[in-house]
Amino acid sequence: MIEGKSSVLVVGSVAVDWVITPTAEREESVGGSATFFSMAASYFGSVRLLGVVGSDFPEQAISDLKGRGVDTGGLEIIPDGKTFRWKGRYHDNMNDRDTLDTQLNVFETFDPKLPTAYRETDLLFLANIQPDLQLRVLDQMSGPKLVGLDTMNLWIGTARAKLLQVLERVDVLMINEEEARQLTEEPNLVKAAAMIGTMGPKSVVIKRGEYGALLFHGGKVFSAPALPLEAVVDPTGAGDSFAGGFMGYLARCGDMTTENLRAAMIYGSVLASFCVEGFSYDTIAALDHDKINARYEVFANLTRFDDARLKD
Amino acid sequence: MIEGKSSVLVVGSVAVDWVITPTAEREESVGGSATFFSMAASYFGSVRLLGVVGSDFPEQAISDLKGRGVDTGGLEIIPDGKTFRWKGRYHDNMNDRDTLDTQLNVFETFDPKLPTAYRETDLLFLANIQPDLQLRVLDQMSGPKLVGLDTMNLWIGTARAKLLQVLERVDVLMINEEEARQLTEEPNLVKAAAMIGTMGPKSVVIKRGEYGALLFHGGKVFSAPALPLEAVVDPTGAGDSFAGGFMGYLARCGDMTTENLRAAMIYGSVLASFCVEGFSYDTIAALDHDKINARYEVFANLTRFDDARLKD
Repeated sequence: MIEGKSSVLVVGSVAVDWVITPTAEREESVGGSATFFSMAASYFGSVRLLGVVGSDFPEQAISDLKGRGVDTGGLEIIPDGKTFRWKGRYHDNMNDRDTLDTQLNVFETFDPKLPTAYRETDLLFLANIQPDLQLRVLDQMSGPKLVGLDTMNLWIGTARAKLLQVLERVDVLMINEEEARQLTEEPNLVKAAAMIGTMGPKSVVIKRGEYGALLFHGGKVFSAPALPLEAVVDPTGAGDSFAGGFMGYLARCGDMTTENLRAAMIYGSVLASFCVEGFSYDTIAALDHDKINARYEVFANLTRFDDARLKD
Repeated sequence: MIEGKSSVLVVGSVAVDWVITPTAEREESVGGSATFFSMAASYFGSVRLLGVVGSDFPEQAISDLKGRGVDTGGLEIIPDGKTFRWKGRYHDNMNDRDTLDTQLNVFETFDPKLPTAYRETDLLFLANIQPDLQLRVLDQMSGPKLVGLDTMNLWIGTARAKLLQVLERVDVLMINEEEARQLTEEPNLVKAAAMIGTMGPKSVVIKRGEYGALLFHGGKVFSAPALPLEAVVDPTGAGDSFAGGFMGYLARCGDMTTENLRAAMIYGSVLASFCVEGFSYDTIAALDHDKINARYEVFANLTRFDDARLKD
């Protein structure tokens, strides 16, 4: 049981992306899993960010994060260092993408060190970074009440043993379909989720991009839709915004009941739907509770149907 | 407006399949769009089937259809003819499949002729056959109240003009994602559905296999999930079972209100979920209202979430 109005700590990448879509392009687009997560979670309560950037990182982005109340005390700035950079091109369907370039830069030697104030944070989200770094963060925490984790095919393939160590200490795993299959070597998602449940996590969130997300928890499944959108501008950061809305809502309301987890899935979907409507964090930096509530209502209408059972 | 308890007429293939999955195989597996549709729709009201088979078609299958109350008076049996045959192999993910062989056989010269009693049917479903045949069926009907249509990439590519003629006379189009994009040359599904709305159909159902289906109607979207299943035995016929549940429910309840269409989407999903749990029509021939209602309830639980809007 966690207290309501708890803080969330996120550890992950803070990046400068170069995003190319079929109709537009943005060079120097601020991104990174921790950036998107923090912006999304900031509407639910207090957020602490741990990461590293170089001196090339735009000061405006740090102001924007602070403006949303995000604690950036744990964002290390390496003088003369260069920020993590990713360049990618989206296909016509806006789902598939090709990575054109990845430069780890200051992320290559990142050694996460938690400010003392961070160690007591109740909720921890380990965004998609090397499992070894995730373990080092976990070891510096004084017993977080709820730990969420993201990972990727690269770590499942190359750092499996470490990843399994992390998983033992995780409450909620967020992973995409193919990663769930790769981790468990089981093509059926229901069986794969059950297998992940034996590795540590009490809840498994399977992300399916434009098809929404599934939550496996307590032997039950919940299906959260994605909102069909007329204008998808830039899908970068959708998964991290989902995680930010999800963890942020859990921090706000207190405990991991089935009802709270389901609402958290919808808040995750709400924030992801806003994220893809703009480049970088343009849209998710400009929300308020009214806009978020209105879209929550759109999700309710998207899935609502009557009890219309057959009578003989 | 259609009357409640109306009949549904389906025109489509009646086939013998050879289905190979990663773990099992069935030669001589009775299939075909009209077969699956009829079985699924039979739980909602009376169903009439129009199609053609050869003398090799198993008599048991005709008995099974009759046993479910399906009117097979329009199923032509060609003496010495050979039934339409399809052979396919499913991949490990049970979604993608390779067609290994297709033999049109008696379907090649099929000239649909409606028995007099069929012409007055209120609801018509034109399953996935050549648009020219679909037009010939439409021309023999005396003003059906509701027409549903399925089609495929082949006809969009090779018989576009005829298909557009059919579309003008259709109320509900059921189509998969890629076909919707191909038909409209628009990658965004929301825009594609709106464009299809200008071609004739008042409602567009976009089928997404294991990801469920979307309904576009009256400027609104409804997202129906697919049920995550632990054991998918044979996905063949899932889309046709969906169509049967969907059209069958509309025939039963009478008119195309938003609420009825949404419930029809769930009944379609319910029948599709049963279909994939067995080979051929094994599972959907063995249902009853209690089993169908219980699964409708499973779908309700799969998507249910609370109103949990943020208060400042």
